[in-house]
Amino acid sequence: MTTEGEQMFRLAEEIWPLNRSLSGEGVRRTLSVLKRELPFLELKKFASGLKVFDWTVPVEWNISEAYIITPSGDKICDFTENNLHVVGYSEPFSGTISLSVLQEHLHSLPDQPNAIPYVTSYYSKCWGFCLDHESLLKLTEGDYRVVIKSNFASTGLDWAELFIPGESKKEIFFSTYICHPSMANNELSGPVLATQLAKALQETQFFYSYRFVFIPETIGSLAYMAENISEMKSNILAGYVLTCVGDEREYSYVPSRGGFTIADDLAQKTFETLHIDPIRYTWADRGSDERQYCSPGADLPVCSVMRSKYGEYPEYHTSLDTLGRVVTVEGLQGSFDFYMTLIGHVESQRFPKLKLIGEPQLGKRGLYPNLSIKGNYSDTHDLMNLISILDGKIDLEHAITTTGLDRIQALKFLARLKEEGLLEY
Amino acid sequence: MTTEGEQMFRLAEEIWPLNRSLSGEGVRRTLSVLKRELPFLELKKFASGLKVFDWTVPVEWNISEAYIITPSGDKICDFTENNLHVVGYSEPFSGTISLSVLQEHLHSLPDQPNAIPYVTSYYSKCWGFCLDHESLLKLTEGDYRVVIKSNFASTGLDWAELFIPGESKKEIFFSTYICHPSMANNELSGPVLATQLAKALQETQFFYSYRFVFIPETIGSLAYMAENISEMKSNILAGYVLTCVGDEREYSYVPSRGGFTIADDLAQKTFETLHIDPIRYTWADRGSDERQYCSPGADLPVCSVMRSKYGEYPEYHTSLDTLGRVVTVEGLQGSFDFYMTLIGHVESQRFPKLKLIGEPQLGKRGLYPNLSIKGNYSDTHDLMNLISILDGKIDLEHAITTTGLDRIQALKFLARLKEEGLLEY
Amino acid sequence: MTTEGEQMFRLAEEIWPLNRSLSGEGVRRTLSVLKRELPFLELKKFASGLKVFDWTVPVEWNISEAYIITPSGDKICDFTENNLHVVGYSEPFSGTISLSVLQEHLHSLPDQPNAIPYVTSYYSKCWGFCLDHESLLKLTEGDYRVVIKSNFASTGLDWAELFIPGESKKEIFFSTYICHPSMANNELSGPVLATQLAKALQETQFFYSYRFVFIPETIGSLAYMAENISEMKSNILAGYVLTCVGDEREYSYVPSRGGFTIADDLAQKTFETLHIDPIRYTWADRGSDERQYCSPGADLPVCSVMRSKYGEYPEYHTSLDTLGRVVTVEGLQGSFDFYMTLIGHVESQRFPKLKLIGEPQLGKRGLYPNLSIKGNYSDTHDLMNLISILDGKIDLEHAITTTGLDRIQALKFLARLKEEGLLEY
Repeated sequence: MTTEGEQMFRLAEEIWPLNRSLSGEGVRRTLSVLKRELPFLELKKFASGLKVFDWTVPVEWNISEAYIITPSGDKICDFTENNLHVVGYSEPFSGTISLSVLQEHLHSLPDQPNAIPYVTSYYSKCWGFCLDHESLLKLTEGDYRVVIKSNFASTGLDWAELFIPGESKKEIFFSTYICHPSMANNELSGPVLATQLAKALQETQFFYSYRFVFIPETIGSLAYMAENISEMKSNILAGYVLTCVGDEREYSYVPSRGGFTIADDLAQKTFETLHIDPIRYTWADRGSDERQYCSPGADLPVCSVMRSKYGEYPEYHTSLDTLGRVVTVEGLQGSFDFYMTLIGHVESQRFPKLKLIGEPQLGKRGLYPNLSIKGNYSDTHDLMNLISILDGKIDLEHAITTTGLDRIQALKFLARLKEEGLLEY
Repeated sequence: MTTEGEQMFRLAEEIWPLNRSLSGEGVRRTLSVLKRELPFLELKKFASGLKVFDWTVPVEWNISEAYIITPSGDKICDFTENNLHVVGYSEPFSGTISLSVLQEHLHSLPDQPNAIPYVTSYYSKCWGFCLDHESLLKLTEGDYRVVIKSNFASTGLDWAELFIPGESKKEIFFSTYICHPSMANNELSGPVLATQLAKALQETQFFYSYRFVFIPETIGSLAYMAENISEMKSNILAGYVLTCVGDEREYSYVPSRGGFTIADDLAQKTFETLHIDPIRYTWADRGSDERQYCSPGADLPVCSVMRSKYGEYPEYHTSLDTLGRVVTVEGLQGSFDFYMTLIGHVESQRFPKLKLIGEPQLGKRGLYPNLSIKGNYSDTHDLMNLISILDGKIDLEHAITTTGLDRIQALKFLARLKEEGLLEY
Repeated sequence: MTTEGEQMFRLAEEIWPLNRSLSGEGVRRTLSVLKRELPFLELKKFASGLKVFDWTVPVEWNISEAYIITPSGDKICDFTENNLHVVGYSEPFSGTISLSVLQEHLHSLPDQPNAIPYVTSYYSKCWGFCLDHESLLKLTEGDYRVVIKSNFASTGLDWAELFIPGESKKEIFFSTYICHPSMANNELSGPVLATQLAKALQETQFFYSYRFVFIPETIGSLAYMAENISEMKSNILAGYVLTCVGDEREYSYVPSRGGFTIADDLAQKTFETLHIDPIRYTWADRGSDERQYCSPGADLPVCSVMRSKYGEYPEYHTSLDTLGRVVTVEGLQGSFDFYMTLIGHVESQRFPKLKLIGEPQLGKRGLYPNLSIKGNYSDTHDLMNLISILDGKIDLEHAITTTGLDRIQALKFLARLKEEGLLEY
């Protein structure tokens, strides 16, 4: 049997080459693979030009070819070789230009001379190429032929959503982003973990509902909130941004803005259960969609538990962030286990409430001796104790622990009272 | 002059022989004696068949004769000798049966071979006898003639209520139960203490209202709540279940479910005042009508201060729980003193509020010098201090202590302001 | 350039001789001088006979002449020499009386034999003179001719109000009293400090509104509340009674009734900033209009920061409380500096709130790089951090300190967001 880690790694390998960006064909192809894995995944679109709060949804970008021919006739920065070579959302361009003009359009990282950087310019029209600094330094004077065959269309941004209904409308919300091209930890790890968690959650009926959104970062979360903020405020019990969850290094934790939401609390409990001592960042270190979800106007209970945090590992946002080198089977498995444990915690955080005034009559249910004689109560006393404290303000986990009951016996008993309409949660 | 303890003991002796149960003639006769003591006591009835939350009010049970004739012709388990001999709510039965069949209907306590146990079966039809274990062991094979002349009627459960109105609608609620046959601590002590407290409270006009209910346990408190829960939630400041208040042993305290209600707080203060260090039980040790009053759906501030707690003294629920052996004049007196002290505490827990904006003009009331000259304020400064903090959020006890005023002077002064409409509490 | 202290001292010298009382010509002349200094000051009147809560606004009192001719023909207690010689609100009287009759109308301070005491009788008709105890002891038997030419008119009490509107309706409230005749610390210091603060506050546009009321003590604050209590409750963020603010001795602090209002908090912060360790009195030591403003029915956040507290310095309420001897340029300046520092504190206690859901798009404002490449965020990260926490619950002072931003840069940035409708405070 393959482990979840192996399944995630294989899925990541499959979608690695697709040219994801804020929008376009690479995103659509990525989502169609995910839909094969999750048949109930709904594929959706945000229309270009849509105003979302202070922002506007940009147009769709597609690119078929991009490269540079050097004075010596070499083809460099070929998009088909590595989709990081082109600045995301580059305008079409075709022309022959001098090295000095070309250099204004080239991006490299002097500190990481072997790495191709990841560069985008979504909201300001330009074009550009990215390459490793060593190659850049070798460029000689002369005429460079530049080709970028890209185009823009007012179709919008693709995204996808999977809602797994539970008994409760209250939901656990997972957000991940599908706008990054071929980089592994940031960001193939998030989408494949989300996919694997969704599969696991569909196997059983859980109490809470679970929602997964696969969106482009920033504009995607903004547009999603523009459509759903009121339901999100009502329903989201805890939310997590799934990003950078694929390497084996330390666990990292970026709190919600408030720092004490249920999402944060569940993360803490899970750290304790799994004996994980994560690197604890602060709100000032945030950097992904919790920026939007936790913004003062949204104020949602969303935080993020990662492995190596974006911006904090050397391969971040470069061609060095690859499967194998950064993301591993074990790294992905660790994140999967973390979130499944967290789900276990939230599922036992119910607050059952006896709907009845007074005690239920257990005698007529065969749960209490009809004959009252000294010393005859002991067997049911613990069950009586349990229901005597279920006032909707104490969580089931604590109530069961307090009364020392067998968990399964307690849950079966409560299920029966619920079925009879005497209990709610 | 007879003490309250003596009066209570005599009343207990008078109603001892009556065959109390959940319902029936013995209850009615008990209540009519109490009404003689408390002329304003209102006699009431819960109708049989009435649905109360998860329960149904049972039918009335009466019994005229019950006994067993042994093979040797002896009459044993004679109801007229001790009303504990018959299982409460026994069906009528008449017949001659073998010892082995009879034994299925006999109840005894092997651990307390001299005691007749107290057994009931309100909600499941059966018949049975109770006897001391030594006698049971002596029964020989042969034919036993069994007679139980009982009957059921759809008339309902008798109960009684006494409301003593105070200045405030807020009330102190006392609940006791009149469903136990001839046993002294559990439960003649509660009804006779309730009666004595009610007498004392009728002698003076108190600030709070006081209510006493004399009901059958469990079904009585449920049925009472079914009729009154909304007023109870509005009006009950503190409530106490009066039970097992007649012996001289330790004081016992069973908290409310929450544990920090005004009822609990007053009990603590009274323990401190009287230097009593009670056995402190927990909510898990509850066992009387606080089970209903404090149930999550009712959530009333009710606790219980007893002497020896039900279930915790050897004579409990047996023929050994008698006047003299368990319940004493001194034991009853101790409970009376406890609750009267508690009443003293609650009566000084008022939260007066100056209704006026600004200070009252004390000068025109002759309470402040009209001539303003340096050093002329000292006499009234303390009174001014007192009223300057009466904002409805500080209790009078504390306000008077803080300002160092003479209590009587302060109360007279406040009474005057209240009369003039400047103060409320 | 004259200091504020010097300006206040000169103003105090100018209005020193005017015969202030609860009402009358001296009050009107005082207020007209203040109006010359503060052209927007509004002169107002409370009608005599007006019921205000438990009180009634008294009639106006004026006096033209008052003196005593001794048996030896000397003129003593001449009102024109010192307006403290006559008991405030003395009835007119003219007659020749014996020393023993006269003595019932004379007031002196045996413990301060050189001081003329300050005596009033607003709410009970009488007449009287005040003189130093040494002079009183020298009076010999014989006929005394007494003249008091006073009169009462149903015109009412004069007062004045200055409102300086800010961006917010929330206001800082200053109350001072103009009912005391020629005494310096108590009470010329309050009105001249109020005047100077009002001048300073009119020089700049501040965020909060500021209100100054110049009223007679007690009845003035009561009458003012009778008209304005609802607006006061809505609008007053912090209030201060300005009294006894002119000497150089210790600072004194009388808390509000609650003790933890914003007014108290600002006073504490200002003490800390200025390294002042005041004499800390309690609510039981109150004595001026906070008695009314903080009364349970009004419950306004008002406290008082003084120099030497009324009643606590030897010259209090006597002819010894003079300019120069008690009140100094430096003393007044210290109080001015205290309250201006306090105003600085409150002005940075804003609670800005991002009105937007999600982050604002800083890129389109040229405040965020449009080209996204690793390491390109640092300059704007602090601004992003600042707005990411402006949820209306954190004060600007704290937010700026936390993010380590330059205050001016931060304020300019917030002003821009506010202008664009993205921020409110």
